[in-house]
Amino acid sequence: MKLHGYFRSSASYRVRIALNLKGLSAEHLTHHLRKGEQRHPSYLAINPQGLVPALQDDGGTSLTQSLAIIEWLDEIHPEPPLLPKDPLRRARVRAFAQVIACDTHPVQNLKVLARLRELGVSEDQVTGWAAWANREGLSACEKLIAGEAGPFCFGTAPTIADLCLVPQLANARRFGVDLAAYPRLLRAEEAAKNLKAFAEAAPERQPDAE
Amino acid sequence: MKLHGYFRSSASYRVRIALNLKGLSAEHLTHHLRKGEQRHPSYLAINPQGLVPALQDDGGTSLTQSLAIIEWLDEIHPEPPLLPKDPLRRARVRAFAQVIACDTHPVQNLKVLARLRELGVSEDQVTGWAAWANREGLSACEKLIAGEAGPFCFGTAPTIADLCLVPQLANARRFGVDLAAYPRLLRAEEAAKNLKAFAEAAPERQPDAE
Repeated sequence: MKLHGYFRSSASYRVRIALNLKGLSAEHLTHHLRKGEQRHPSYLAINPQGLVPALQDDGGTSLTQSLAIIEWLDEIHPEPPLLPKDPLRRARVRAFAQVIACDTHPVQNLKVLARLRELGVSEDQVTGWAAWANREGLSACEKLIAGEAGPFCFGTAPTIADLCLVPQLANARRFGVDLAAYPRLLRAEEAAKNLKAFAEAAPERQPDAE
Repeated sequence: MKLHGYFRSSASYRVRIALNLKGLSAEHLTHHLRKGEQRHPSYLAINPQGLVPALQDDGGTSLTQSLAIIEWLDEIHPEPPLLPKDPLRRARVRAFAQVIACDTHPVQNLKVLARLRELGVSEDQVTGWAAWANREGLSACEKLIAGEAGPFCFGTAPTIADLCLVPQLANARRFGVDLAAYPRLLRAEEAAKNLKAFAEAAPERQPDAE
């Protein structure tokens, strides 16, 4: 398999964690987002959206969108599972992941922040926007798992929720968000970071890290 | 079941279609988004994110995030299926849905547009932003299904992809996007709109429509 990604892309980071948890290896191909390499015609043939990640299987088939890729990996390599068995629990895990993957990350990604700058918004306001998007999402996430014993977001093993949370907390720190308001999320992050699968997927551990 | 929604919310619209396709009924409770009713403490107890939709099952359990709700409905009421059986096809359908639900809709929703206005962005620029977000997402979607025979997004029956597409096209029209560039998407929309389940879920057919 080939994973098209970028060290700092939090959506790529989610897929790197999933591959590590499943014990799968992939060739990592980097596309420098700030240089716009994700919009090169040869990459658009792989992902017409011009975003990372994309995963190519050994037959050359391309899959896009991190959550779709992760659920595919979970379906064809079921161990260890990244979703609970119970439908109601699965729905809660997916909802938590989607608060991040739908309502938080895309509102503060590189493309949206670049568009804000084009509208003449100041650099301080751009950072403020990104911090706001992170606070909105993380506040909801904190409440969604307030009653969960943990130590992971949902139970004693990582799920798709943790795969989304850990990269998003890295983004939040980059935008200066005070994370003290999210003790439950920090506890889940600590549990995750103790696992090699998470540690080795971290942006600073990637060969393309700057 | 109770569906907390709003007639014009495209995420609520997706869940209304799913309920109709499954032949399930739910009590529809409206929360007027422009009046901020989704941020009332009694609703935040149901969905701490302060967004619609939320679905409460007969036991009072609340589920949030439209795609998580729809996959839950599909798991507990498998007929008619809203995802293909083959894992690779499932991943493609989910990726299409996520281009809309992650990268398109949240970038142009009420909350984000309100935030733009707070930054002093002009009304024309706000509309331009929303139209841009729609064009970016729909262009990618058009390419993702260019090779699909249809008539629906993926095959001869609706999937989660169609549940996301039809409401998003309604948004795109509202923001003045020229849809002529997306003939394959329009063909899928036409197939969907011929189904009663889609027609009856339309915003203008809801009791809270203005």
